[in-house]
Amino acid sequence: MLEETYLYEEIHAQPRVIETLLQSERETINSLASAIKKRNITFVLIAARGTSDNAARYANYLLGAYNQLPIALATPSLFTIYQAPPRLKNALVLGISQSGMSPDIVAVLEEGKRQGALTAAITNNPESPLAQSAEFVVNLNAGEERSVAATKTYTAELTAIAALSVALDENPRRFSALQSVPQAVQKVLEVQQNIAQIVPRYRYMRACVVIGRGFNYCTAFEMALKIKELTYTVVEPFSSADFLHGPFAMLEEGFPVFTIAPSGALQEEMQHFLKTIGDVHAESIVISDNADLLKLGRMQIPLPVQVPEWLSPIISIVPAQLFALDLAAERDIDPDHPRSLHKITQTH
Amino acid sequence: MLEETYLYEEIHAQPRVIETLLQSERETINSLASAIKKRNITFVLIAARGTSDNAARYANYLLGAYNQLPIALATPSLFTIYQAPPRLKNALVLGISQSGMSPDIVAVLEEGKRQGALTAAITNNPESPLAQSAEFVVNLNAGEERSVAATKTYTAELTAIAALSVALDENPRRFSALQSVPQAVQKVLEVQQNIAQIVPRYRYMRACVVIGRGFNYCTAFEMALKIKELTYTVVEPFSSADFLHGPFAMLEEGFPVFTIAPSGALQEEMQHFLKTIGDVHAESIVISDNADLLKLGRMQIPLPVQVPEWLSPIISIVPAQLFALDLAAERDIDPDHPRSLHKITQTH
Repeated sequence: MLEETYLYEEIHAQPRVIETLLQSERETINSLASAIKKRNITFVLIAARGTSDNAARYANYLLGAYNQLPIALATPSLFTIYQAPPRLKNALVLGISQSGMSPDIVAVLEEGKRQGALTAAITNNPESPLAQSAEFVVNLNAGEERSVAATKTYTAELTAIAALSVALDENPRRFSALQSVPQAVQKVLEVQQNIAQIVPRYRYMRACVVIGRGFNYCTAFEMALKIKELTYTVVEPFSSADFLHGPFAMLEEGFPVFTIAPSGALQEEMQHFLKTIGDVHAESIVISDNADLLKLGRMQIPLPVQVPEWLSPIISIVPAQLFALDLAAERDIDPDHPRSLHKITQTH
Repeated sequence: MLEETYLYEEIHAQPRVIETLLQSERETINSLASAIKKRNITFVLIAARGTSDNAARYANYLLGAYNQLPIALATPSLFTIYQAPPRLKNALVLGISQSGMSPDIVAVLEEGKRQGALTAAITNNPESPLAQSAEFVVNLNAGEERSVAATKTYTAELTAIAALSVALDENPRRFSALQSVPQAVQKVLEVQQNIAQIVPRYRYMRACVVIGRGFNYCTAFEMALKIKELTYTVVEPFSSADFLHGPFAMLEEGFPVFTIAPSGALQEEMQHFLKTIGDVHAESIVISDNADLLKLGRMQIPLPVQVPEWLSPIISIVPAQLFALDLAAERDIDPDHPRSLHKITQTH
C-alpha cells in the first residue's frame, strides 16, 4: 500500500517539518543574516548536489531578487580533483546537504574557512562533517529521511533559504507570508486525488520534459529528478526560455511537457509558452493556481492554494512529489528503494 | 550530400576560425585582462543562453582553476521579468552571444554598465546591441554562421575564453599550448570516418545521456544540445558525480551513455564511472584519447590528438558535432534547418 511507504509519510510530514524549522532555526538564521550584513559579502558561493543543488537554484533567484546577492554555484571538482579553488575572501560559502556527508561539498566549506570566508551549512545532520566545517549551522530538524528520494528535506531547505532572505531584508509582510507556508503545504496535499486520477495515463510514458522559469526553475529540476529517480523515465528540466533555444526541435505530437506555472510575474510569458507548445500538439500538463494558464494545458493539475510567487516553489513541488510516488506505484516500483541508488553518494 | 550542407562546411571551418581569432583579438583580450587586474574584480557574472551558455560553463572551470575567479551564471529573468538585479559593483559582467541580439542578455550588460561594473562581450556581431552595451568587445570573426546549430562560433567562444585565461596569468607555456589548437582541431576532424561507421547503430536511439566532468562538463552539455537540435533525440547531460545522485536509477541494459573522458586529472574518476555503468550493461560510448579509458566502453570514439586537459573541450566537441551531423543525415533530417528552430531566439 502506498500509504505505508516511507515516501508517502515523508511527503505528508512536510507541513509539520516546515513549521518546526521556522521556529527552531529562527535565531540561528537571524545571526547568520547579521553576519552577512556586517562583513563585506559581495557574493554567495553555494556547494550542493542532487536535490540540494535544486535548493541552491532557488537561492539563486530568491537571494538575487530580494537581497541583491549574486550567487555562484560551486564547481566542487575545482576544490577536490583540480585543487585550484577560486578566491573566496568576500564570499559567504554555503553548503547545502541533507546528510552533510558528501566529501566534495565539505571540501568547498573547508576551503572557504581556510581563506577566511564566512561559512554556513544547511543540513539535516548537525553532527555531520559539513556542519563541523561551518561557522553557522541551520539544522533542518526534519527527522530521519528513510526514503532514498528526498522530499521533506528539500522543502525544508527551501524554507531555510526563504527564512534567510526574510531575515536579511526585515520586511514584516514577507515574514508573515512565510509563516503561512505550513498551512499552504497542508492544503496543497489535497491535490493527491486529482493526481491519482491522471497518473494511469502516463503508465507507459518513456520520456518527458519539465519546464519552469524564474523562482520555479528549481521546481522544474526537482520534479524532473523525482520522476527520474522513482519511475525510471528519461526526464529533462528546462527554463521556458532555454527550451526555445534548440531543444524545442525534439517536440513531437503527444510528447509530454510538464509546465510549472504559478501566478506571478511570469504569467504572460508562460501563457505564450503554453500556446507555442499547444500549437505543435505536445501533451501539455500544467501545474498552476491560475485558471487561465490551466486551461491552456491538455491536462491540468490545479494548485488549491495561492502564495506569493517567491514562496511558490515550496508549494508547487508537492504535486510533483505525489505524481512521482503514484507513478512509481503504477509501475510496481518500490518508491522507498529505487534500483541502484543509495542515500549518501560519496563523490569526490 | 552531407558535404554540401552549411553545417559540414562550418564544422570544417573551425581550425581556420580559431587561428584567425587568436591573431585578430589578441590585443583586445590583453586590454581586457589588464582592466580585470586593475579594477578590484571579485567575481565574474556571465550572461548567455543555449550554446553560449555552454561556453560559459567552460569559463566557470577555466577562469576558476587558472585565474582564481569565481563565476556566477546570470539568471536573466532577474534583470528583465523581475527587474530585481543583484549588486554588480565588483564584477566583470560578461555577455556571450553569437548574434548579440538576445534582449535578455543585453539587459544584463546594460545593468552592469548602469552599476559601474566592468563589462565585456564575446560575439560574432560587433555591431550588435550586445557589443554596443559593452566596454570591451571580443569579435569572434567566425564569418556568418548559416546553419541553425552553432558549431564554429562555439569553439571560437571557447578559444576566446581560453585566450583571456592565458592573458590573465601570462604563462608562456600555456600561451604556446593555445597556439597549437588550430592544428589539433584539424587533426581531430579525421575522426569523421570512425564516426560514419558507428552512427547507423544509433538510427533508432530515442534517448541517451551524455557525461562529462570538470573542464568537459561543458562538452557534455554542448554534445547533448547538438544531438537534440539536429536529431530530435531526448538527451540529457550530466556530470558523472551528479549522475550517481539519482539519475543512475534510470539506466537500463542497453541504454546509451556517451562519456567524454580525455586524459587528465579526472582519469581515475572516469575509469571508476565507466566500470560502474559497464556493470549495469549500459551501452557505453567513450570519447577519449586514452586507450585504457576507451577499452572500458562498448563502443569507442578515439581522439587522434592529445592536448592539455584545459584545452581539451575545444577538441573533444568536434566528434560530437560530427556525430550529430551524421545521425541527422541517417534520419533524413536537413541538418541546416531542424524543424521549429530559428537562429535568433527573442527571449525576455
